[in-house]
Amino acid sequence: MFFSNAGHEVAIIDNLCRRSFDDELGTNSLTPIASIYERTKIWNRTTDKNILYRYGDVTDYPFLSSFFKEFAPEVIIHFGEQRSAPYSMISREHAVYTQTNNITGTLNILYAMKQIVPNAHLIKLGTMGEYGTPNIDIEEGFIEIEHNGRKDTLPFPKNPGSFYHLSKVHDSHNIMFACKTWGLSATDLNQGVVYGWETDEISMDEKLITRFDYDGIWGTCLNRYCVEAVCGQPLTVYGKGGQTRGFINIIDSLNCIRIAMMNPPSKGGYEVYNQFTEIFSVKELAEVVQTEAIKLGHEVNIDHILNPRVEKEEHYYNAKCSKFLSLGLKPSLISDTLINHILHIISKYKDRINNDTIYPHINWK
Amino acid sequence: MFFSNAGHEVAIIDNLCRRSFDDELGTNSLTPIASIYERTKIWNRTTDKNILYRYGDVTDYPFLSSFFKEFAPEVIIHFGEQRSAPYSMISREHAVYTQTNNITGTLNILYAMKQIVPNAHLIKLGTMGEYGTPNIDIEEGFIEIEHNGRKDTLPFPKNPGSFYHLSKVHDSHNIMFACKTWGLSATDLNQGVVYGWETDEISMDEKLITRFDYDGIWGTCLNRYCVEAVCGQPLTVYGKGGQTRGFINIIDSLNCIRIAMMNPPSKGGYEVYNQFTEIFSVKELAEVVQTEAIKLGHEVNIDHILNPRVEKEEHYYNAKCSKFLSLGLKPSLISDTLINHILHIISKYKDRINNDTIYPHINWK
Repeated sequence: MFFSNAGHEVAIIDNLCRRSFDDELGTNSLTPIASIYERTKIWNRTTDKNILYRYGDVTDYPFLSSFFKEFAPEVIIHFGEQRSAPYSMISREHAVYTQTNNITGTLNILYAMKQIVPNAHLIKLGTMGEYGTPNIDIEEGFIEIEHNGRKDTLPFPKNPGSFYHLSKVHDSHNIMFACKTWGLSATDLNQGVVYGWETDEISMDEKLITRFDYDGIWGTCLNRYCVEAVCGQPLTVYGKGGQTRGFINIIDSLNCIRIAMMNPPSKGGYEVYNQFTEIFSVKELAEVVQTEAIKLGHEVNIDHILNPRVEKEEHYYNAKCSKFLSLGLKPSLISDTLINHILHIISKYKDRINNDTIYPHINWK
Repeated sequence: MFFSNAGHEVAIIDNLCRRSFDDELGTNSLTPIASIYERTKIWNRTTDKNILYRYGDVTDYPFLSSFFKEFAPEVIIHFGEQRSAPYSMISREHAVYTQTNNITGTLNILYAMKQIVPNAHLIKLGTMGEYGTPNIDIEEGFIEIEHNGRKDTLPFPKNPGSFYHLSKVHDSHNIMFACKTWGLSATDLNQGVVYGWETDEISMDEKLITRFDYDGIWGTCLNRYCVEAVCGQPLTVYGKGGQTRGFINIIDSLNCIRIAMMNPPSKGGYEVYNQFTEIFSVKELAEVVQTEAIKLGHEVNIDHILNPRVEKEEHYYNAKCSKFLSLGLKPSLISDTLINHILHIISKYKDRINNDTIYPHINWK
């Protein structure tokens, strides 16, 4: 909707697996979301634009390639992957599914680009989690290393923390190779933890609203804290809470993709951006939510629960994110107003909250 | 046979895909190899040892896990992957097969270890090709990086050159994660290009001999050069021939695995060894073969053919391989005698050479 609204011709392909994962796990969006058929119909009627939706799976090459032939994309924004770390850690089957699904989809897109639209620009969603938490500054994709008197600029060493995050590392290596070998162009967005929910486009009609995940599998921590605050439950910080990450507002996330689209790498180029605007520890973030929720009259405590993940709970973290800023991104930072707004949205849909899904039941070990 | 001979109890599981790849591509081993059933029967009869062979696929978890329960391995030597770079570059299907097959097999082994034999030691075949050809010295798996006044020891940055080599990079990241998260122990062997063929064990009976690949898909360059020399054809160097790699004799390769087995990492440890003994450019290696073949009366020229691969043909290359030496490896280096011996073996089976399979038909682009 964001790109359609900006005047681009947009087509979506999606196998809707995210909805079947909810069926599988008993999770659900806080916000009631319409079917994609209904949403595109409403969007096209409301705006007089035309988003084309086609049901299909990027791991199905005959489908993907025939769609590429029909639509001839100039830009491919690839978000078609299993995107939850806890989901990938449920079982062997979920780990294997996450990695083979994500890798096969991305390989298929690379081959379809090579064969059908070799001049298209791939914009691929990666994650800041690819880097892990090294004891040195995290650069954007590449690092100049001086070693034994010689220098080279090499891919930043990766040390991810789940089979999902690993799948993104695998994708990054595959994409870098395809650019080098076939002359494709790609931008890899190492995105931080996304928060927020509302955009200008979904505000046009309630039937256009998108999902808001808050559970232990799909929700990110800011959303979860806000739901817990509204429910009058303690905010669940995993372990010591010193786990520090980059965060980004959904609005900035969309603007980053727009900026990436407007600044394609040259042919054969593989560009990596770190896509976040602020760094917090998960404990700091809980305190921000606590402060704001108390102002609104909620009673809010913070609980340190057993960390289901295997990760450092106190560590150095200094990741760079200057490329998007230098290309004009004006960040929308976390503010009282934003948290206040999220808390209000949650209150509106409070009856839909399923408390059983919040506590993390998927253990990394 | 090497480990059985040394007194270990050995079981093999193999889906024999390497033989079906030959059926698919019209390639074949120079040496006539018996079925695995026949080879194990002869081995067990000749030596009074007992190698157990079970037909099956590591990507089939019910099979793999029931086999682990039955045999309870203390050491798992995992070579069960699609292992050819050109094969992985034939088509999209071959790339996807190579990556999903290799990743799924390794993930299955990691889960089977976790669930059934958590104290076993995984020895996994990787490749020196994971590193690519950086302009700095290649360390063994990890590198200490000093950056903006801080230090960390991180995985050596990877920059592999085919979908096969990429699959090994993916495996390495997955294994490192499983060791860290589940406390498994693994040794990753980044092996160079293997040459040679004969071991004490296969010399016991002609029916025990193993494959000798020389074609453009499965053969490595030393083997190919030797076959070309015996056929009176020019040695085919790809491009300028400055491509420089680590090489290792099959005898040393076995001894490295033995050394790795005797020196398991502690629980949760992930150890990486570079497994080669000498560094040559492919052109230098052609000249070594040329010199020796001329001595034996062959007429031998060197042809620089169009390089089917996308790779640097002139580059810095200094990879470390000191860990195995410090643990006692006594390398068997390339020698006149060795090349002479390989040329004699080839002459013996000369009638089986299929000339059509030598020239590289699989283009990286």
